[in-house]
Amino acid sequence: MCGVVGIYCKDENLTAHLTFYSLFSLQHRGQESAGIAVFGDDIKIVKGMGLVNDVFDQETLRTLKGKIAVGHVRYSTTGGSKIENAQPFVVRTKSGVITIAHNGNLVNYLALREELEKLGSVFVSESDTEVIAQLLAKLLLSHDIEDALKLLCKRLRGSYTLIISIDDTLIAFRDPLGFKPLCFGKADFGYVFASESCAIDAVNAKLIRDVKPGEAIIVENGEIKSVFIEKSKKKAICVFEYIYFARPDSVIDGRSVYEVRNSIGKILAEESPVEADIVSPVPDSGTTSAIGFAEASGIKYLEALIKNRYVGRTFIMPSQGLREFSVRIKMNTVKGNVKGKRVVLIDDSIVRGTTSRKIVDMVRDAGAKEVHFRVGSPPIISPCYFGIDMQTREELIASRKTVEEIRKEINADSLAYLSLDGLLKAVKIKKEDLCLACLTGNYPIDVDSAYGCR
Amino acid sequence: MCGVVGIYCKDENLTAHLTFYSLFSLQHRGQESAGIAVFGDDIKIVKGMGLVNDVFDQETLRTLKGKIAVGHVRYSTTGGSKIENAQPFVVRTKSGVITIAHNGNLVNYLALREELEKLGSVFVSESDTEVIAQLLAKLLLSHDIEDALKLLCKRLRGSYTLIISIDDTLIAFRDPLGFKPLCFGKADFGYVFASESCAIDAVNAKLIRDVKPGEAIIVENGEIKSVFIEKSKKKAICVFEYIYFARPDSVIDGRSVYEVRNSIGKILAEESPVEADIVSPVPDSGTTSAIGFAEASGIKYLEALIKNRYVGRTFIMPSQGLREFSVRIKMNTVKGNVKGKRVVLIDDSIVRGTTSRKIVDMVRDAGAKEVHFRVGSPPIISPCYFGIDMQTREELIASRKTVEEIRKEINADSLAYLSLDGLLKAVKIKKEDLCLACLTGNYPIDVDSAYGCR
Amino acid sequence: MCGVVGIYCKDENLTAHLTFYSLFSLQHRGQESAGIAVFGDDIKIVKGMGLVNDVFDQETLRTLKGKIAVGHVRYSTTGGSKIENAQPFVVRTKSGVITIAHNGNLVNYLALREELEKLGSVFVSESDTEVIAQLLAKLLLSHDIEDALKLLCKRLRGSYTLIISIDDTLIAFRDPLGFKPLCFGKADFGYVFASESCAIDAVNAKLIRDVKPGEAIIVENGEIKSVFIEKSKKKAICVFEYIYFARPDSVIDGRSVYEVRNSIGKILAEESPVEADIVSPVPDSGTTSAIGFAEASGIKYLEALIKNRYVGRTFIMPSQGLREFSVRIKMNTVKGNVKGKRVVLIDDSIVRGTTSRKIVDMVRDAGAKEVHFRVGSPPIISPCYFGIDMQTREELIASRKTVEEIRKEINADSLAYLSLDGLLKAVKIKKEDLCLACLTGNYPIDVDSAYGCR
Amino acid sequence: MCGVVGIYCKDENLTAHLTFYSLFSLQHRGQESAGIAVFGDDIKIVKGMGLVNDVFDQETLRTLKGKIAVGHVRYSTTGGSKIENAQPFVVRTKSGVITIAHNGNLVNYLALREELEKLGSVFVSESDTEVIAQLLAKLLLSHDIEDALKLLCKRLRGSYTLIISIDDTLIAFRDPLGFKPLCFGKADFGYVFASESCAIDAVNAKLIRDVKPGEAIIVENGEIKSVFIEKSKKKAICVFEYIYFARPDSVIDGRSVYEVRNSIGKILAEESPVEADIVSPVPDSGTTSAIGFAEASGIKYLEALIKNRYVGRTFIMPSQGLREFSVRIKMNTVKGNVKGKRVVLIDDSIVRGTTSRKIVDMVRDAGAKEVHFRVGSPPIISPCYFGIDMQTREELIASRKTVEEIRKEINADSLAYLSLDGLLKAVKIKKEDLCLACLTGNYPIDVDSAYGCR
Repeated sequence: MCGVVGIYCKDENLTAHLTFYSLFSLQHRGQESAGIAVFGDDIKIVKGMGLVNDVFDQETLRTLKGKIAVGHVRYSTTGGSKIENAQPFVVRTKSGVITIAHNGNLVNYLALREELEKLGSVFVSESDTEVIAQLLAKLLLSHDIEDALKLLCKRLRGSYTLIISIDDTLIAFRDPLGFKPLCFGKADFGYVFASESCAIDAVNAKLIRDVKPGEAIIVENGEIKSVFIEKSKKKAICVFEYIYFARPDSVIDGRSVYEVRNSIGKILAEESPVEADIVSPVPDSGTTSAIGFAEASGIKYLEALIKNRYVGRTFIMPSQGLREFSVRIKMNTVKGNVKGKRVVLIDDSIVRGTTSRKIVDMVRDAGAKEVHFRVGSPPIISPCYFGIDMQTREELIASRKTVEEIRKEINADSLAYLSLDGLLKAVKIKKEDLCLACLTGNYPIDVDSAYGCR
Repeated sequence: MCGVVGIYCKDENLTAHLTFYSLFSLQHRGQESAGIAVFGDDIKIVKGMGLVNDVFDQETLRTLKGKIAVGHVRYSTTGGSKIENAQPFVVRTKSGVITIAHNGNLVNYLALREELEKLGSVFVSESDTEVIAQLLAKLLLSHDIEDALKLLCKRLRGSYTLIISIDDTLIAFRDPLGFKPLCFGKADFGYVFASESCAIDAVNAKLIRDVKPGEAIIVENGEIKSVFIEKSKKKAICVFEYIYFARPDSVIDGRSVYEVRNSIGKILAEESPVEADIVSPVPDSGTTSAIGFAEASGIKYLEALIKNRYVGRTFIMPSQGLREFSVRIKMNTVKGNVKGKRVVLIDDSIVRGTTSRKIVDMVRDAGAKEVHFRVGSPPIISPCYFGIDMQTREELIASRKTVEEIRKEINADSLAYLSLDGLLKAVKIKKEDLCLACLTGNYPIDVDSAYGCR
Repeated sequence: MCGVVGIYCKDENLTAHLTFYSLFSLQHRGQESAGIAVFGDDIKIVKGMGLVNDVFDQETLRTLKGKIAVGHVRYSTTGGSKIENAQPFVVRTKSGVITIAHNGNLVNYLALREELEKLGSVFVSESDTEVIAQLLAKLLLSHDIEDALKLLCKRLRGSYTLIISIDDTLIAFRDPLGFKPLCFGKADFGYVFASESCAIDAVNAKLIRDVKPGEAIIVENGEIKSVFIEKSKKKAICVFEYIYFARPDSVIDGRSVYEVRNSIGKILAEESPVEADIVSPVPDSGTTSAIGFAEASGIKYLEALIKNRYVGRTFIMPSQGLREFSVRIKMNTVKGNVKGKRVVLIDDSIVRGTTSRKIVDMVRDAGAKEVHFRVGSPPIISPCYFGIDMQTREELIASRKTVEEIRKEINADSLAYLSLDGLLKAVKIKKEDLCLACLTGNYPIDVDSAYGCR
Repeated sequence: MCGVVGIYCKDENLTAHLTFYSLFSLQHRGQESAGIAVFGDDIKIVKGMGLVNDVFDQETLRTLKGKIAVGHVRYSTTGGSKIENAQPFVVRTKSGVITIAHNGNLVNYLALREELEKLGSVFVSESDTEVIAQLLAKLLLSHDIEDALKLLCKRLRGSYTLIISIDDTLIAFRDPLGFKPLCFGKADFGYVFASESCAIDAVNAKLIRDVKPGEAIIVENGEIKSVFIEKSKKKAICVFEYIYFARPDSVIDGRSVYEVRNSIGKILAEESPVEADIVSPVPDSGTTSAIGFAEASGIKYLEALIKNRYVGRTFIMPSQGLREFSVRIKMNTVKGNVKGKRVVLIDDSIVRGTTSRKIVDMVRDAGAKEVHFRVGSPPIISPCYFGIDMQTREELIASRKTVEEIRKEINADSLAYLSLDGLLKAVKIKKEDLCLACLTGNYPIDVDSAYGCR
């Protein structure tokens, strides 16, 4: 649950600025820390806790001169929100300065680290990115970049979309199963690689294509070269990017996120119709699907809930005696739209269920006659080990309860989830090319020695 | 263009927290500065530049103990963004500590200030609120609160929605023409007054009614009393609150803002129909009208543009060489939704026209076949002197150009504004009770000695 | 207990910088807040809590353009450390923008404020400076500057050294009794007024003379004019400036502070001789007197104590279990200098006695055979109402205890204070021209309606 | 030019606080960054740029729970003032968490780093401390702590006083030549190791002795053990600690710094007598020697210069047009003490000579008849490669000029340096046990492959 950017820009004064705008458009992928490393004469790096816009200002960006940039926004899971774990991770090695920005999660992280420690390696962070950096440094001692990546690939298990710079060589690399997205764009200024196409748009570049699973695109002296590091017959494209995580204006692996979510809404309307007066999203994540649901069902689209757009990460939580306000602070009902109405609420997913309950109650308080809940994904029953910060199995309400039990718990008149088939129809990617682990429990790679997200 | 809150809460430990949540829900009314003054044993005040959430934290709120609170968020016009001008404005007087939060603008501010200066008064700020405070202090020397307000009212010309505390007496007062809104709510904890009903909802209070033009509601020792300070036959309720400024989940002077905007969209569709494939809002302000337009026209509702929800006030503007990005940073097109399509874009208003042009161009770049622009208000032709920060007449594109000229300038295939009649139909308030000055040039009070917004 | 600076500088780009350096050299007079107001086209003011060097940077100073500057550093007594009370105090009036920096304390502050409040005046701060500003503004309505100052003078009771600017007129004014110092310097760039001559030296100006008690020096269009506002036969020059408060490199009212303190040490040695091996200051305040004591007594000067020069205002106080460290953090003994020795410690004064006890104990712990304490002032028995932040009478150890009792309490082998006659011999100013109230209890003006320092 | 602290404290809640007070008393050894790492259940580390008091507060210290602490203050030479280089340096290894605080400089740093890089090691900082950490980690794979230190010692060339923790084992280690000091103290709470004895005093511990060159003192489970890692016949104790760097209240390798400096003054008076009226230190560094000079010469001790005690590291330097003020801001003359007098100024050393010139000029401006300069050390002619941040040879005025040429350049009437013999007499340590490289050019270890200080 991170965003990565790699930029090659001919004008060394613009590189950091472009990286900033790209990262800014990926802010939804991580709000914990942000960093940009630029290679000019030497590496210069600025990292900090907080939003892209908090960490950087014009002054700082101006000091980051060079043609090659690696950027990162990070979402940290519990415990790890330390500046030490912020990325990009930069190390000085025999082969040059290596900079890495990583989106994903290695399931054999601890095993690899222990192996390196036995050889005397030391670690300054608790991130799997440092393991990748040390492995790569060792491999580059006796191998060229391509071979080093091939050997690296054999050692890493898990998801790893990487932007790497080795001195002034820029590499965009996606693991063979292609868990997390990576887009490739071109502009007059040069090249841009980023987690989502919206970050290509942000710098007014043209989306060329996605970096393919197992492919590395290498930029050297302004020339690009594509190398297949490892081919895998199956893929494991993260379906959750389409359901929730990516921005709706992004196109990932050839599929428009907006279109997928819109189709989800339509299919949901077909699969689980309901008599109602209005269809409303739970803002913001349910919006696109709600529009599709309204169109397919013919029920009027009208917003039951308005989100306070100033809600951010660091909001002061209600103190003792005001706890009931926790959802109310974030959104409010439009009473006129729900009073005496039968309301269908569309959300992208239900994780723990507590927020859904509060929302349903709020809509009822506003006078709704009935509240029907429709969810744009099948029930989430298994934790993710590949980079999405989901709860442990116990916290996933759908792993413990039936749909009917959940309906009762969230106090809805009816509740329906999208079917897996419905989801596949909307995504239009072959089932065997998707990672559906959180919905099915079938992990595309062995995770029995796995550790939680990092 | 400010937001005000007044709270009487029996539990002196909750007052500041409740005020914080109310103010937070009014953040859209002003992001320049925020302040809360609480009267307990003495007055305690915390003010700062920036967002409510930046100025306050739990620690700070805990120090603000007392039953009476006055809160303010401020939007400053050019030049005035200094901490000296932040509100609430607090003064110590013979009659007690007077705290004032003001939404509005006095057109006779300079005349009043000069008059007071001639008597030897000194001023520490450049705000009209200080003039009100000094006048009130003088009047309270020889009059009780009601009489003082009556006499004050005779002196003030312009718009003034005021939350005042005089030691532990709380007063919510709205000028006789009722330019700016003021709502009154009740809860177990006590009473709340706020610029919009969403701030009543925010603290889980019940909206009782609006404070009426010319009415003062006074809270003393937990008892409330309504007093009519001055009655005016006509009113001048700001129509722009409905068009743009207020939150859609608010109900102002009995009219749901959402319903008004939704009707605007419907009437616009009837008045200025167009053959098209999709209707899309310019986010976020055009959303509610676009939903109405889609419903009335039967054209599919689909988002052409997605806004980056992390865009805030202090964003780093593109540096030289990247100026073209200024709109691109804020929003992006959903290419799949517009490619080859005839698109209707709905916005609430056009002020200078430069942003509209960039948006139309962006949608065309994304492949739209046609771009039609529909505006949810009549052309803005005159500046506002009553508190909405509009441009000078020269900057208002509609004061210089015909609709056809504007269409060309923003590069749209067609352009239509809502008619004044259409607007009145949507708002459902009598024409003579509205201030339509910005749309008609007819000011409800004489402004020839007026000064710009403050 | 404040420092004031007024500068007229022909080069409007240098004015604020010069004021900064002057203020910086007066930092010992107040570390609570700092402020500079510069009058160019309009007034520009920057104030902040903390040290001069924390509040200002090059960037900020550059924005303060103009020929006239008023600067202030403030030491606040209990309760009043709020930004609202920071100076200079700026008000807009009929007669122009009035800026005031004040060193001193009005004893009739509350009476004056109540009088003004009865006329409807309002107050935004709790400082007596605001009262002075409002009185002056009223007087300027119908009087020229000189007459206004004369009338102002008749109303103010207490100490008030003022730097005032009225638009581009600069005034340096000292109350008729001349409690607090005010120096006048000249340089190529223009004129400088400051609390102490070290601030004249700081900007490489030449000390011309002191502003005399009751004198106002007015700078208008680069021309200076001296006016006697009120003549008083007696004066009340604060003796504590010489004893403790002023910097040793300053010359105040014609007397070198260094020379006074050095003489104090010599006279102390004559008045209260002692057989000992070394004389040491309690750093830093006892240094100059200790040098004089050593010279007169013939006892070797050697430092028993070394101060940690990084100790500042905001030091983290020892937590529970480490309280004993409070003095140890600030200074340490030089064991080799005291072991087995008879040590004379020289300090400038004893207020509460608790620190003296800890110091004597520390020197004993380091192995001193005997510890003799000599104090460079007579016992402090009465509180100050004119601007020095002394304790209430109960806290002044010398108001409750005999010298012998104090000796026991601080655990010294002998203790002697300087006699009042000795002090007068050292200061070389006529007794009737000095304020000796803290040492004698005889106040130069009536203080029975007085309020604590402000 | 750094300060190190290691503490074992039985009460895990006090450890960080004690370390803070120790570090605070070593602040003069480094103002660039400060850090404390505490080992409890796991390592916790807080590092930051700036002063000890800026980096830590009570809140932060409270979070650092554990019995073992390693602290560091750092003075960085040009280029290296980055947070990445702040210490202590913490790494996770197979043998546990290793924390290192280092005072000194490795002359074979780059060679060692290159050697490690060839084995695939990566480096995140540019500090030699990271090299030590990686070497130690490798050695600990197959050796116990003592053997690992012995082997480490064979690889490191240069100066290295180290505080190391390996999980909950604390090690204080001093290189075989003993360049930089390291003291050992004991208290009820446990043990403390620190660069100077003033840091032992600061926590009210008793100075037991110095850690000897080549000795490691290991604290495990509260038990201490002394191990000789390597014995060297000769030593190379840094003489500059006595001349300038250490605090006068410290005792280093059995010699009181105060006594050494006082003797320096006396010997200087004997070696280079002068007829004069007053002896004054250049504050603060010349004070102790000036006291000795005055005693031996019989010339009156009187301060010609007063230092502004608020001068800190981050002072705003005078802008264009005010450059002449650079010394004036830091100190001022006491005119009465120098006017018409023959003045002897005592400073500890002269490096580039530019400041000395400004001081002499300032004293002359204040009216001195003659200004004689006496320096408490022989001329500095060679750069230091062992941790003192001296200039390159070209910048050292004494490496280019004769004493007479320097006298002219600093505009003194006479100039004399202490002789090397005089210095040795004052220090009372055998010549062969001292590092005198900066004064003689004879380096105790080969530095021809050396790199500048780090």
